[in-house]
Amino acid sequence: MTRIRLIVEYDGTDYVGWQVQPNGIAIQQLLEAQLHEITGEKTVLHASGRTDSGVHARAQVAHFDTPSRIPPEKISYALNTGLPQDIRILHSEEAPTDFHARFSVKEKHYRYKIHHAPHASALNGRYSLHIHTPLDFDAMQKASADILGEHDFRAFKSKGTALKSTVRNIYASQWTKEGHLLQYDVCGSGFMYNMVRILVGTMIEIGQGRKDSAALKNALVSLKRSDAGATAPAHGLELSRIVYDDGFDTEDYV
Amino acid sequence: MTRIRLIVEYDGTDYVGWQVQPNGIAIQQLLEAQLHEITGEKTVLHASGRTDSGVHARAQVAHFDTPSRIPPEKISYALNTGLPQDIRILHSEEAPTDFHARFSVKEKHYRYKIHHAPHASALNGRYSLHIHTPLDFDAMQKASADILGEHDFRAFKSKGTALKSTVRNIYASQWTKEGHLLQYDVCGSGFMYNMVRILVGTMIEIGQGRKDSAALKNALVSLKRSDAGATAPAHGLELSRIVYDDGFDTEDYV
Repeated sequence: MTRIRLIVEYDGTDYVGWQVQPNGIAIQQLLEAQLHEITGEKTVLHASGRTDSGVHARAQVAHFDTPSRIPPEKISYALNTGLPQDIRILHSEEAPTDFHARFSVKEKHYRYKIHHAPHASALNGRYSLHIHTPLDFDAMQKASADILGEHDFRAFKSKGTALKSTVRNIYASQWTKEGHLLQYDVCGSGFMYNMVRILVGTMIEIGQGRKDSAALKNALVSLKRSDAGATAPAHGLELSRIVYDDGFDTEDYV
Repeated sequence: MTRIRLIVEYDGTDYVGWQVQPNGIAIQQLLEAQLHEITGEKTVLHASGRTDSGVHARAQVAHFDTPSRIPPEKISYALNTGLPQDIRILHSEEAPTDFHARFSVKEKHYRYKIHHAPHASALNGRYSLHIHTPLDFDAMQKASADILGEHDFRAFKSKGTALKSTVRNIYASQWTKEGHLLQYDVCGSGFMYNMVRILVGTMIEIGQGRKDSAALKNALVSLKRSDAGATAPAHGLELSRIVYDDGFDTEDYV
């Protein structure tokens, strides 16, 4: 058996997310069907984590085991021929047998885009949230630094998600601005379901003056979901980069 | 009558281009229908020029005359409510009565994007041409300067296009590179039908070593369409900026 790791890019617009769901088509489902097609084997894919319905990935990572003799670097080409254009395998290679797409993650990067302008954008609308109301960029930028370091992010997870630990370590968190585009980049040891979208939602409310500038800090102390903001829409978010314990870094191939 | 000018952004993927055609939906057609809807009048829109089927516009400009009393700056909002999301009016204002979207153009800017990587991109595929073969970027960059200044671009127009003059003045022409993205920006007094796509097609063939590095220069002398390269695909191209004689510059609103 050979362990293979893949870098997968996708436009999440038309999918129910990474994981198989009863109400639509999942990325994982299409990839597993295509793997079955090329290897002749029923194959289970393990991703770095699920992405919600509508969330994009510039660099999702997944692994699987196969007895197939297809050269590992050719698997990307073989898979792409049968996949829709909004899902692309950017890279495939043999991985160490102890590599695990989820458990070997060292750091994950997410990016959220806001198109801040009077009118929505025809060309950027698919990959950014349109906001036309005033936003205090400096307040959002300042607040973003409040989550740096190790914190209990219990206030920033979806209700009903059962987890052993809600403590996560954030290595970088900042907004940048270029013309109408506001971009939030966050990097950490890991993120819970909806966590980035709730962080962004809270900072948007800070930017709109609907929440106190210390709202992020306060929610990290109170641990109450109700002290954080709304969950920002999925289509502004993308999983942008993953770095692994063994040094494998999606940025080297994307 | 008031003359109104609009800045229109569109994703050309699903349209037959700006101008009404028998084989599909045109941008102009949807906009005129929507103008009829909000003004109650049959209105003719004049654009800076047509864009081909599949070509995008970050900033197309069009004007029309109307007896309507809708405040000019509100027209963008009124139009957007009835337009599909891949067409957006970014700006509307009253224009001088001698303004003409086509005849008052001082300079037009086009941008062409190439995604140069082993695999196509799921997220950038809509707005860039995928090329996986080696490209000599320096050769393409060097060739791009050959068209600067006033030249007869007869070799770079579609056959069958009848025009008074095929002389155009090019003010800027250059490639830039960032990761997998190669971007060509060209600015000139005007461009003929398919001209930018043929220029890009020729430079791609230079980059691939299929044409001599002096191919652009040679075609400017021979004036033969057969000395230029193939017409590059439409989806990599966008009309990116227009500047007018009266100082109106789309860049101030986009």
